[in-house]
Amino acid sequence: MDSHAPAGESARQDSDRIKHHPAGPGPGNAAAPGSVGIVTPQDYTFGVPGKGITLESGTEFGPITVRYETYGRLNADRSNAILIQHAFSGDAHAAGYHSAEDRHPGWWDNMIGPGKAFDTNRYFVICSNVLGGCQGTTGPGSIDPETGRPYGLSFPVITIDDMVKVQRELIDHLGIDRLYSVAGGSMGGMQALEWTVRYPERTRSAIIMAATSRLSAQAIAFNAVGRNAIVSDEFWKGGDYYDGQPPARGLAIARMVGHITYLSEQAMGMKFGRRLQERANFGFDFEDQFQVESYLEYQGDKFVDRFDANSYIYLSKAMDYYDLGARFDGLERAVQNCRAKFLVVTFSSDWLYPPYQSKEVVFAMMRQGVDVSYVQLESPYGHDAFFLEIDRQAPLVSSFLEGLDEK
Amino acid sequence: MDSHAPAGESARQDSDRIKHHPAGPGPGNAAAPGSVGIVTPQDYTFGVPGKGITLESGTEFGPITVRYETYGRLNADRSNAILIQHAFSGDAHAAGYHSAEDRHPGWWDNMIGPGKAFDTNRYFVICSNVLGGCQGTTGPGSIDPETGRPYGLSFPVITIDDMVKVQRELIDHLGIDRLYSVAGGSMGGMQALEWTVRYPERTRSAIIMAATSRLSAQAIAFNAVGRNAIVSDEFWKGGDYYDGQPPARGLAIARMVGHITYLSEQAMGMKFGRRLQERANFGFDFEDQFQVESYLEYQGDKFVDRFDANSYIYLSKAMDYYDLGARFDGLERAVQNCRAKFLVVTFSSDWLYPPYQSKEVVFAMMRQGVDVSYVQLESPYGHDAFFLEIDRQAPLVSSFLEGLDEK
Repeated sequence: MDSHAPAGESARQDSDRIKHHPAGPGPGNAAAPGSVGIVTPQDYTFGVPGKGITLESGTEFGPITVRYETYGRLNADRSNAILIQHAFSGDAHAAGYHSAEDRHPGWWDNMIGPGKAFDTNRYFVICSNVLGGCQGTTGPGSIDPETGRPYGLSFPVITIDDMVKVQRELIDHLGIDRLYSVAGGSMGGMQALEWTVRYPERTRSAIIMAATSRLSAQAIAFNAVGRNAIVSDEFWKGGDYYDGQPPARGLAIARMVGHITYLSEQAMGMKFGRRLQERANFGFDFEDQFQVESYLEYQGDKFVDRFDANSYIYLSKAMDYYDLGARFDGLERAVQNCRAKFLVVTFSSDWLYPPYQSKEVVFAMMRQGVDVSYVQLESPYGHDAFFLEIDRQAPLVSSFLEGLDEK
Repeated sequence: MDSHAPAGESARQDSDRIKHHPAGPGPGNAAAPGSVGIVTPQDYTFGVPGKGITLESGTEFGPITVRYETYGRLNADRSNAILIQHAFSGDAHAAGYHSAEDRHPGWWDNMIGPGKAFDTNRYFVICSNVLGGCQGTTGPGSIDPETGRPYGLSFPVITIDDMVKVQRELIDHLGIDRLYSVAGGSMGGMQALEWTVRYPERTRSAIIMAATSRLSAQAIAFNAVGRNAIVSDEFWKGGDYYDGQPPARGLAIARMVGHITYLSEQAMGMKFGRRLQERANFGFDFEDQFQVESYLEYQGDKFVDRFDANSYIYLSKAMDYYDLGARFDGLERAVQNCRAKFLVVTFSSDWLYPPYQSKEVVFAMMRQGVDVSYVQLESPYGHDAFFLEIDRQAPLVSSFLEGLDEK
């Protein structure tokens, strides 16, 4: 496989390099069986300046444009819609291709398509770019209609809850009362969880992978390093860099830090070990690079082409601030009104959002009589496993979704 | 305690803040019982331009100045000398105070002194700053006598082995044939291990804490991020910044990354949790900082005052390149000629140089019939535990050292 699509936490070719087992009908091209084929992103805009949604901060904010894609068909009673939520660096392009020549399928293409876990023969799958992002939905790089210039740091602080409110506007626009499921990994899982709490009557089920109800101090610390790298870049200029050079080095360093946290020590060891980049001889100079170094530098540099540094700041802050239990005086109170059936999946080597954090949520759900299945998959791939462990993850998801119909 | 001395991997006040149990007669002031009192750093210089030691790269390098301190007295037959080796960001100031007003004792003051683990009533303790460092021993910030200007990147690439060769010159200078022990944590432990391999006849014992014979890909990756942050700083200027502003932001970011790796997730959670810096109200702006963020930023900024960015690059590269087994075609061959008795100590939550890495060395030693004791201490404090777990570590060390006399 030679797919190079941008992905959620890591780039997809990353998945391909690291994978040691085939994943069934994976991405190849738009005409391949199992592909949703060529898809066209769509935009939905609502609100006017000063009016749109009420952010968690209390600020009224609009207008908001939402970039989204859909796969499959909405059925007659509008009951088969699944909303997929992307991770930190992901986007609305979850499956398929943007043209016949496009070699880079969407970031969860191995999970979404005819016959796949999110079976587009059965379900109408929606994925939208988050508020604050930089892939079509309104974010700090968007033009502020009041000034005619990019928002930069005048963009309001947004939260996971705000992302979900914007998604609800989109779901309303699509005429869907109740989602068959909400599903995501990492920051996507946080949004899925938030949906079930904020809109219990509108979520029939939720699939939450490699997520957490609140980041650890360590995870916040890694995000803080990334933000520091960005704001220390001479080109960042207080976030007002859109008419000049972007803070590319700072953003690349932030991405390098992130990449380390998305993989496990074991996965990095399997993938790179202590191998040096090919060179005739060890030269005792700083040209002697380990493969892991040049890989990270490559990932950092590549990221800069597709991501906005200010979005990095806003979205990472949204994750840091997320603390579902604190907002409701405890996780049990937070989930007590949930009506969704849950599938919560963790990966044994995920040290960014370790399994114990998901278990806290699951135990709170159990104590409240919420219908929840918890599965921890043994995997060496760390946090990124939800992009990689398709063989074991896909049957779990499809079984869970099919099981909903039995009731 | 209010000590604020620079330390090995972390700053000492860090230790004090994190510690929940007293550590016996700890640092306080020069007159306190258990303190070695006021100490004076000394310099030893050897070699001339182009002649000094033969580096592992094959380059002849000199002159070299070694900054060192000693505590206690060398006995008549010069058999009671213990060489302490410092960690990455440490220095020669391992114990005592530099003046009566000095409130900042040396970095391992809680381990070195009369009646302490390294008992200066019995042993003559030596600690020197490493080659490539920036605390008195020749490094990239030193003046190249050939040019009259700081070396910068014209300083040769150095290795752990080279650090040890310089220490041997110092030991020769002090007239010591055989060291009673070599001891260090982290990068210091790598040097101690290297001593026993390179100079088996000169090392009676070795104490190796929180160390490794080779870094994992993940540990290399963290170092690579730090180096990238430094060289991306506009003030780095290819390493030639000594007559201007140093690359302070880049170095601070490197330090922040390092700090995360020195603590465990649990230790960070205990220390900071998700507490926000004190502020009247959560303001939904970027002034809302978690305590862990401001702590890291403080540590980063403070580090810049005492450390040289080029030393960060050279020393972190030396650690990355260290691979004892690879150099000898396997760890068993590497240790087969060791004559030292070993104490190898690891800490359960050290994820930077995890216990399994020390065990690889220990098992190789056992297979070669080398006399080795291995102790893994259960500790939540991560890699930094060798600065913190004094209550349990000190008796281990003193018992080990006393046991040598019984033979």
